[in-house]
Amino acid sequence: MNALKDVKETLLMGPGPSCVPPAVYAALGLPTIGHLDPRFIAVMNEIKSMLQQVMQTKNEVTLPMSGTGSAGMETCFVNMIEPGDRVLVLINGVFGQRMQDVATRLGAQVDTLEFEWGTPVQVGAVRAKLANNRYRIVAVVHAETSTGVRSPVAEIGALVRSAGALYMVDGVTSLGGIPVTLDAWGVDIFYSGTQKCLSCPPGLAPVSFSPRAVEKLRNRKTKVPNWYLDVSMIINYWQGAKRAYHHTAPINMLYGLHAALDTILQEGLEPVFARHRAAHEQLVAGLEAMGMQMLVAPEYRLPMLNAVKIPAGVDEAAVRSRLLTEHGIEIGAGLGPLAGKIWRFGLMGHTARPENVERVLRSLESVL
Amino acid sequence: MNALKDVKETLLMGPGPSCVPPAVYAALGLPTIGHLDPRFIAVMNEIKSMLQQVMQTKNEVTLPMSGTGSAGMETCFVNMIEPGDRVLVLINGVFGQRMQDVATRLGAQVDTLEFEWGTPVQVGAVRAKLANNRYRIVAVVHAETSTGVRSPVAEIGALVRSAGALYMVDGVTSLGGIPVTLDAWGVDIFYSGTQKCLSCPPGLAPVSFSPRAVEKLRNRKTKVPNWYLDVSMIINYWQGAKRAYHHTAPINMLYGLHAALDTILQEGLEPVFARHRAAHEQLVAGLEAMGMQMLVAPEYRLPMLNAVKIPAGVDEAAVRSRLLTEHGIEIGAGLGPLAGKIWRFGLMGHTARPENVERVLRSLESVL
Repeated sequence: MNALKDVKETLLMGPGPSCVPPAVYAALGLPTIGHLDPRFIAVMNEIKSMLQQVMQTKNEVTLPMSGTGSAGMETCFVNMIEPGDRVLVLINGVFGQRMQDVATRLGAQVDTLEFEWGTPVQVGAVRAKLANNRYRIVAVVHAETSTGVRSPVAEIGALVRSAGALYMVDGVTSLGGIPVTLDAWGVDIFYSGTQKCLSCPPGLAPVSFSPRAVEKLRNRKTKVPNWYLDVSMIINYWQGAKRAYHHTAPINMLYGLHAALDTILQEGLEPVFARHRAAHEQLVAGLEAMGMQMLVAPEYRLPMLNAVKIPAGVDEAAVRSRLLTEHGIEIGAGLGPLAGKIWRFGLMGHTARPENVERVLRSLESVL
Repeated sequence: MNALKDVKETLLMGPGPSCVPPAVYAALGLPTIGHLDPRFIAVMNEIKSMLQQVMQTKNEVTLPMSGTGSAGMETCFVNMIEPGDRVLVLINGVFGQRMQDVATRLGAQVDTLEFEWGTPVQVGAVRAKLANNRYRIVAVVHAETSTGVRSPVAEIGALVRSAGALYMVDGVTSLGGIPVTLDAWGVDIFYSGTQKCLSCPPGLAPVSFSPRAVEKLRNRKTKVPNWYLDVSMIINYWQGAKRAYHHTAPINMLYGLHAALDTILQEGLEPVFARHRAAHEQLVAGLEAMGMQMLVAPEYRLPMLNAVKIPAGVDEAAVRSRLLTEHGIEIGAGLGPLAGKIWRFGLMGHTARPENVERVLRSLESVL
């Protein structure tokens, strides 16, 4: 079986995974030890503390779930929803739609507010909806990976708090690339992934639950209908003096996450955010200089996910394929209504560097 | 953050994770590429083919789920169960109990047959139960990790098939250590983990569904109430000419699994099983020579999980702790009713070698 021989270093400029720094690769290959080994518990404790720093939260229940980012979404809904709970999902792209699907499967009564893809959630519409309805949970995507739009999560959070609902935020693409301040925003339920701006390979889903969310979890009338993702049991493995076995943690992936978080905090959150902004500005300037147009209005653009309209007459799939095979660069296609209409350039984590932007612009120019 | 500095090579002789061969560590650190990259699809195709060989099945739907072994259990139940389905769970240890918990949470009507811990499921009791009841699913653990017992899955399979039920088998600890022949046994639904006899770090759950199981999945009246583990969607990422994005696969973990399966198949399944048997016999002889007694009768013992009774007057936790800190060896404690009564010595995958058995016996002797 030979397929691993063809795996070569690639400049990952799609919607994730992103490029992985050498320290993270090195950590992945550290010796596997037991999931109850005191040395591993020490690794877990440091991961938890670093996640709290990156998420700007004091939430005790802050830990990585043993699955990819979508498992984080599943975790948040399955632990919080009880049959019949009313949930409002704010949708402006694929991941808002996925939230609706996940919550509906779990028996929630789901209402939605939908916004044009490529535009943010509008605060006024949320205010009007909350004025006339009562929800247990309001859910929104901070950084829509399918369109490159940032929604105003702080403003929405204030409304949700006044309305007495729990506030759920998807930070899969935002965490580690732009400020994420859970406590300041009043976020109760948060999930992310490791393969975007944290620059760890995919496989873990950091989550955080506020004391109010934990109270809802503790007061459930029925068991969480998902043993594997039951946070009420998993916290007994992640905190306290005596750790209880739940499932065997993904040891080596957690080494990788530890190294990834450490790398970010060593650089400093502000310098990391500034690096993302600078790479974004460099990329937009370069694309516009080549005559291309961005999908999203400047004030709502994400630095780490840049959606650009495909120039007329271009075979977009052929361009992506040539970038990959001839230049070793992956960029992303459009999804849903934007398929065939946009490319998505990711500048996430370790990828967000001037030399990488320079390289993709040069390569794109030569292919077009 | 320094905890990674204390992670040192450890002889993993507990109930899993097991020691990881160098080729697998090397694969974990290969460059991350995109989850839709044609080179990655090639890696996936080879993994699928190797899993079919190790599981001895022609099942098309054979793939690793993106979670640890317990996610495999969750996957099998959540895809197969519809509300009110009658399920029979055969219980002779922790993992049978977990099956009952998982299935009950999902709304199944669960019946159980319980057997003393340390003994196998009795075929006669299953026959009697099936004579008087009709079930959609009958579920059993092949190799009970909590006790070291092998249950007669071939004989049970014949009964389940005659009874017209679907047959679910937990092969978390057996796969790659003793013969697992899904098609010959008539297994419809199977799950395993990577951190036992496959000797890949924890993080993936290989599963397999027979055509009959896939038919039940296709004919569900309701969506699978778990988006993340919905196999009806995930198969569109794992097979066919055009692959559809579901969630971002855990790329580097899958490199590791590829290398682990390749390592096993290069050695050959029969030699691998023989190596497990030889290590088991060497360990049992050594423990008995030290005056200790095995928990399980010889004909039901698993080679990869050896439960031995703790000699009277021994502080069992202190022994385990000294083995770990002074000798770099992890062994396992007892669970549930066997806590404080047994140790569990794992001889799984790469761990199952004469020099390792020699080392643990010598170390144990010096500690006792």
